[in-house]
Amino acid sequence: MNPQKKMNESTSLLLNGGYEQKQRTDSVSSSFSLSFLRKTTIATIFAVVSVFVILTKTNQLRVQEDPIAVASMLGWKDDVHYDWEEFQHKYVIIEDDNTYSDEGILYLNESRAFRLLGDNDDFYYYQQGWEAQMNQAYCSVATMAAVLNSLRGDDTSFKLPMDPIYDPFYWATQHTIVDAKHNDCVFNALGGKYSAESVKHIGLGIGMVPDIMNCYLNSNGYVAIPYPANSTTEVEANDLKHIIVDALSDGRSRVVLNYDRGGIGQGGLGHGHWSPLGGYNKETDSFLIMDVAKYKHPPAWVKWMNLFDGVSTKDTCTKLLSLDTPIDWNNMDFTTILSIISPLCIPGYRGFVVVKPKNMYDDE
Amino acid sequence: MNPQKKMNESTSLLLNGGYEQKQRTDSVSSSFSLSFLRKTTIATIFAVVSVFVILTKTNQLRVQEDPIAVASMLGWKDDVHYDWEEFQHKYVIIEDDNTYSDEGILYLNESRAFRLLGDNDDFYYYQQGWEAQMNQAYCSVATMAAVLNSLRGDDTSFKLPMDPIYDPFYWATQHTIVDAKHNDCVFNALGGKYSAESVKHIGLGIGMVPDIMNCYLNSNGYVAIPYPANSTTEVEANDLKHIIVDALSDGRSRVVLNYDRGGIGQGGLGHGHWSPLGGYNKETDSFLIMDVAKYKHPPAWVKWMNLFDGVSTKDTCTKLLSLDTPIDWNNMDFTTILSIISPLCIPGYRGFVVVKPKNMYDDE
Repeated sequence: MNPQKKMNESTSLLLNGGYEQKQRTDSVSSSFSLSFLRKTTIATIFAVVSVFVILTKTNQLRVQEDPIAVASMLGWKDDVHYDWEEFQHKYVIIEDDNTYSDEGILYLNESRAFRLLGDNDDFYYYQQGWEAQMNQAYCSVATMAAVLNSLRGDDTSFKLPMDPIYDPFYWATQHTIVDAKHNDCVFNALGGKYSAESVKHIGLGIGMVPDIMNCYLNSNGYVAIPYPANSTTEVEANDLKHIIVDALSDGRSRVVLNYDRGGIGQGGLGHGHWSPLGGYNKETDSFLIMDVAKYKHPPAWVKWMNLFDGVSTKDTCTKLLSLDTPIDWNNMDFTTILSIISPLCIPGYRGFVVVKPKNMYDDE
Repeated sequence: MNPQKKMNESTSLLLNGGYEQKQRTDSVSSSFSLSFLRKTTIATIFAVVSVFVILTKTNQLRVQEDPIAVASMLGWKDDVHYDWEEFQHKYVIIEDDNTYSDEGILYLNESRAFRLLGDNDDFYYYQQGWEAQMNQAYCSVATMAAVLNSLRGDDTSFKLPMDPIYDPFYWATQHTIVDAKHNDCVFNALGGKYSAESVKHIGLGIGMVPDIMNCYLNSNGYVAIPYPANSTTEVEANDLKHIIVDALSDGRSRVVLNYDRGGIGQGGLGHGHWSPLGGYNKETDSFLIMDVAKYKHPPAWVKWMNLFDGVSTKDTCTKLLSLDTPIDWNNMDFTTILSIISPLCIPGYRGFVVVKPKNMYDDE
């Protein structure tokens, strides 16, 4: 296998002129006339204020009454996300293309797949909090939360954030770990207020994920280090493999990966994705991807060759630089959104992120 | 061990006269004066209607814009739930009380605990969708969703419900499986519209959980059967144990349990609880509780003796009969709520629920 990918050179974020400009249909036509209001009496103003107070309080009550129904009602359907996935995929060509053939995959839903697990694989540590991504853009967020929870030990020495839902218990959730409003480190790692919003629509790249993880890891004596899969020779690719295998064999370290599903033969289920690795099986030379999109399929054993095909793909936005004006993600058409974020996107290779104790890192 | 428990005979749901009547502080004092409104002109009415339209639309937009923030903001803090837990616990006495000593528990966060797993234990099948309970009352709901997802096979023959968040993929979530509004079977199993609301506050008992599971299981050729732990002799207790061990050794069956945490030595972390069982280890005579309150601690190996102490406890409300009037769960004081639900509660023992293919059941 030649790890050098035939990448389409148009990977740069030039706008695709022929891209269909989709009109959003949910624009609001206001029936409120300010000039009309001016003509009303002082009594009107009092009445309006009173109604405002009541409506606000009524709404607060409704939310308090039925949190589950409200959360469920919200759903998650994001046109920008789907457009973004489609846009990204246009620029990826995978060598030995097995995009839609998952023949090399062994899913973790049968005995022979269970038996490939080692006695002390990270898979078991992830049982402490490896959860399905809470919407279809949050694969990186679910992956980061899983890593943090997997490091929780017997004692309380590893400090996790607290989600008000689980007060008074400390446990990393997707709600809290990218909450830029209450964590300055996360605020900065996400590129500030306006860029932080982008997570919900275009997800996070390998240029940002380690920084966010480090907001929680460093104070606990751990560090996250990115390893983009930009290897151009087989020797370099093997060096990368050894780093990953070594980290997986150490109980204190974790490895997560950012890959294109097409590389491992799951192209029918989407493309750019994040998940933790649960272990390495030497006999079959395969890695366990603990897919956070549990609704799509179970964890999967994937051979190194295919795993490398997945990680050594280009991401048009490994890092989004700080936006200085807000984007109206719900109402702007996708071409306009692209024209704003393109100049702020740093393209590059996907790859792995290794999490390990700081002192291990110092020793090297 | 004598399986006969010394149960406090006041387990019946008589109100505790000395129970502190808590005043909720979140009552709304309206500043809206109807008589004043009557005096305003027609212009006022137009203005009010206009403001109403705008506020409603603005609110819709806000929700659409920021689903994550809204969901997170909701949190979950339910006085009724905490009062209910406290009330329930007053009537439980556990023999050989080890309520606050978890010395007999082996948590699944170290190698020797991992090694107790068998090659084909249900634990592995639960990897397809065993998620943390989404609030502190939803242990039964998280448990049911985990069972359904664990039965998903290679093909699409086992039909799961779809959560709009994960459209177009089928996967059981806590949002959807107790959604009485869109499923008549669930509506009836929960006792109708008003009783359905109670799930969020007092949870579900063993008199209701199998019925709800069967709404999803029966059409797939499976059935859920309750086994309350009301054994009065050691022989009966052993018979129950054999049923559970047999079901756990069959790859097509699942077992979940409803227990008091005090029985297994986790009394400091709450009391009435539900979780799936992930396996049985014969050498140590222990069962793996895959706790859905992942934020509290990892899965735990628990000896039969302690497991039985946990399940053979009395629940004051194994089933809530149909309410014919709504309860204002957020604003009524707890004594009033108790006076409404007590006559509708059927008390009884906690225990196990076995899920297995219908034809297996027919054979017996």
